[in-house]
Amino acid sequence: MRMYDLITKKKQGNALTDAEIRFLVNGYTKGEIPDYQMSAFLMAVCFHGMNEAETLSLTMAMAESGEMLDLSAIHGMKADKHSTGGVGDKTSLILGPMVASLGVPVAKMSGRGLGHTGGTIDKLESFPGFSVSISNDKFIENVNRMKLAIIGQTADLAPADKKLYALRDVTATVDQLSLIASSIMSKKLAAGSDVIVLDVKAGSGAFMKTYEDARKLAETMVRIGNGAGRKTYAVISDMNQPLGFAVGNILEVKEAIEALNGRAPEDLNDACMTLASYMLLGAGRVTSVPEAKDLLAETIRSGTALTKLAEFVEAQGGDKRYVYEPDRFPKASLTYEVKAQTEGFISGMNTEEIGLTSLVLGGGRETKESEIDLTVGIVFEKKIGAKVNTGDTVAVLHANDKEKLSAAIERLQKAIVIGQTPVSPAPHILGVVEQS
Amino acid sequence: MRMYDLITKKKQGNALTDAEIRFLVNGYTKGEIPDYQMSAFLMAVCFHGMNEAETLSLTMAMAESGEMLDLSAIHGMKADKHSTGGVGDKTSLILGPMVASLGVPVAKMSGRGLGHTGGTIDKLESFPGFSVSISNDKFIENVNRMKLAIIGQTADLAPADKKLYALRDVTATVDQLSLIASSIMSKKLAAGSDVIVLDVKAGSGAFMKTYEDARKLAETMVRIGNGAGRKTYAVISDMNQPLGFAVGNILEVKEAIEALNGRAPEDLNDACMTLASYMLLGAGRVTSVPEAKDLLAETIRSGTALTKLAEFVEAQGGDKRYVYEPDRFPKASLTYEVKAQTEGFISGMNTEEIGLTSLVLGGGRETKESEIDLTVGIVFEKKIGAKVNTGDTVAVLHANDKEKLSAAIERLQKAIVIGQTPVSPAPHILGVVEQS
Repeated sequence: MRMYDLITKKKQGNALTDAEIRFLVNGYTKGEIPDYQMSAFLMAVCFHGMNEAETLSLTMAMAESGEMLDLSAIHGMKADKHSTGGVGDKTSLILGPMVASLGVPVAKMSGRGLGHTGGTIDKLESFPGFSVSISNDKFIENVNRMKLAIIGQTADLAPADKKLYALRDVTATVDQLSLIASSIMSKKLAAGSDVIVLDVKAGSGAFMKTYEDARKLAETMVRIGNGAGRKTYAVISDMNQPLGFAVGNILEVKEAIEALNGRAPEDLNDACMTLASYMLLGAGRVTSVPEAKDLLAETIRSGTALTKLAEFVEAQGGDKRYVYEPDRFPKASLTYEVKAQTEGFISGMNTEEIGLTSLVLGGGRETKESEIDLTVGIVFEKKIGAKVNTGDTVAVLHANDKEKLSAAIERLQKAIVIGQTPVSPAPHILGVVEQS
Repeated sequence: MRMYDLITKKKQGNALTDAEIRFLVNGYTKGEIPDYQMSAFLMAVCFHGMNEAETLSLTMAMAESGEMLDLSAIHGMKADKHSTGGVGDKTSLILGPMVASLGVPVAKMSGRGLGHTGGTIDKLESFPGFSVSISNDKFIENVNRMKLAIIGQTADLAPADKKLYALRDVTATVDQLSLIASSIMSKKLAAGSDVIVLDVKAGSGAFMKTYEDARKLAETMVRIGNGAGRKTYAVISDMNQPLGFAVGNILEVKEAIEALNGRAPEDLNDACMTLASYMLLGAGRVTSVPEAKDLLAETIRSGTALTKLAEFVEAQGGDKRYVYEPDRFPKASLTYEVKAQTEGFISGMNTEEIGLTSLVLGGGRETKESEIDLTVGIVFEKKIGAKVNTGDTVAVLHANDKEKLSAAIERLQKAIVIGQTPVSPAPHILGVVEQS
């Protein structure tokens, strides 16, 4: 088998066999196939796509290119949730404890934030002492004992995907459906859970700008997950405004704790209830989504989900007093109220710009090596559809640096559009792709 | 300017500006743009093509990436001829002296043979003592004195093309019209002649298998040449059988000498008369092709073209006695007559296979480093359209190695098809693309 022939085959619009896809993924990972051949192949894929079988083969080959996490020592059906990346998304901190408190094991690998989107690990590290670097044995023991543990991605998780993604990133071959879907799913499959619930974001703050594109990605990933023998669902959710009101690590942790105390904003509540319901459904803990929602609501009312968060934080070395007394979290030294310049209705929020505003404040990473400031960010008081008068506070910026603050003010003001006609915000949950 | 954006632009089907194309050619040549970005770009070009302006920009940028030969010290309009590569093509050895003997300077850079096609330099080196490594000054002095000199391609001729071609060769991005045309034309433009006559071959022994593809390539190259301010013509010629009867270096030189003595096979005569006519026309030596053909025929009848060959061989260190006494050339030690296995009409000659038969005998190069045997090759007695009886000799193989000979016999027999119905061979000249 020669890589040259596989490039030609794809260039001519033909489908590759499983053996051919494995040859190219393994050859590339080992360094036997050079970057320049792989990038030519990837560009041909951008033009001709990959069929369902090819996409599954690519995903499996990348998943199996490194360690496949063995979670068999954990009792029961393990459920995982993955978001394609959004602004203000703190759902893992809420639904993880909810689902775990209902006895379904959540053995999760999470990532750090990059670019305009945040990451669960950064948020968890807001709890003093919290560590995501626990041993495999401890990880499994924790999940068996209390149904919830979260670790960072190991270096050996789907190394083929890591290498391919780095190449796609510099050769303008990122935006191809099969390549996106296989990249996400290879890591999820390698991470070992039995149930995979995907949160596919659509809108100005998401990689997929339209519902249609998000739906196609969702369907492709659900097919891959099912094809690989995992119970897979995808929820398509709105990312034309931030999820909830808070954007920034500690600010989001505090909003998550509020949610576990029963005071979640409506969109955040919808997100957590829907995603968690499918985790329970997939794991066989319930037989319907309404049944799941009732049980999940009870974990909030009874306080068992909040208790689970405290237990989980403590088990990974964190100070659980912060769960009950969130005022203990450090605060940024400067705040600034961004006010409406005109009266009207908030009709648009450029959500990627809002994510970048938090990044500009120091709350995100421009590169993997960036240090982040956990205290900074934005707390909105109004979102899409809200009526505002001139001078009303729309958002409060939290900052530690005057120059960064003034850059953030300018950026945020441009990101918020006030129109003259009333606007109804979209429902947060736009659709669900169920296992077929 | 970022290469990433240029890849994206081409991927989306947009045309690049001259500045953008120069940026990517210069950046790649200097090693600032990595192979993996260039190969992704090239693959996008395979899908979207390049328009006329882009193709000209690419050609000029590659031509100017190295030394642009300055032929201004040579008096008059310099005429060059370039073939896209064929089997049995010894036209340069014939038309060079013909054109030069009519006073039009031919200052030519030639290549060595590679793969199934031969090269002029190898043929010239059949004359003992002949050297293509003469100095620039000597080259110009020779052309001024006697209107003809041929040197090997300098290492610094269109280095961008050399680097790009090597990358295309391993990334399945060779067969794109603009890339092929710009690769050929960049070297021709850098080689400095005022008149460029292209011999675009079409058929089983050529890169372009069909007349339609050859015509498109011819038109593209003529547009580039005219766009760059050179008088450019393209002749499209048949390569569904070897040109003339001889294939192999010394065997072809002998056929060329025969042609200069007025005994050219018809197709070879047509090729030389047509190509040379456009060289004369472009240089302003004549005002029409019929006028050119009369003058050219006279150079043969009078012997001035043969005398010019001898003068040229001597001026570059070769032994001119071989021109007048071609029996002096060494001969291969073995000959073998390939006979018709059945009676009928020769209906097909797989010309690429015939080229490879000569290569198998040792007459060609598999890689640039291969040593070649100048004496071996094939002399056909019959070509397409000929009636044959069982046992008639179709071709004589000349070899120096029994094993190579038996491999060549098998190969050649398969390459020649004898059918039962009479066949008329195609005319050798299939079309001409004139300067527009």
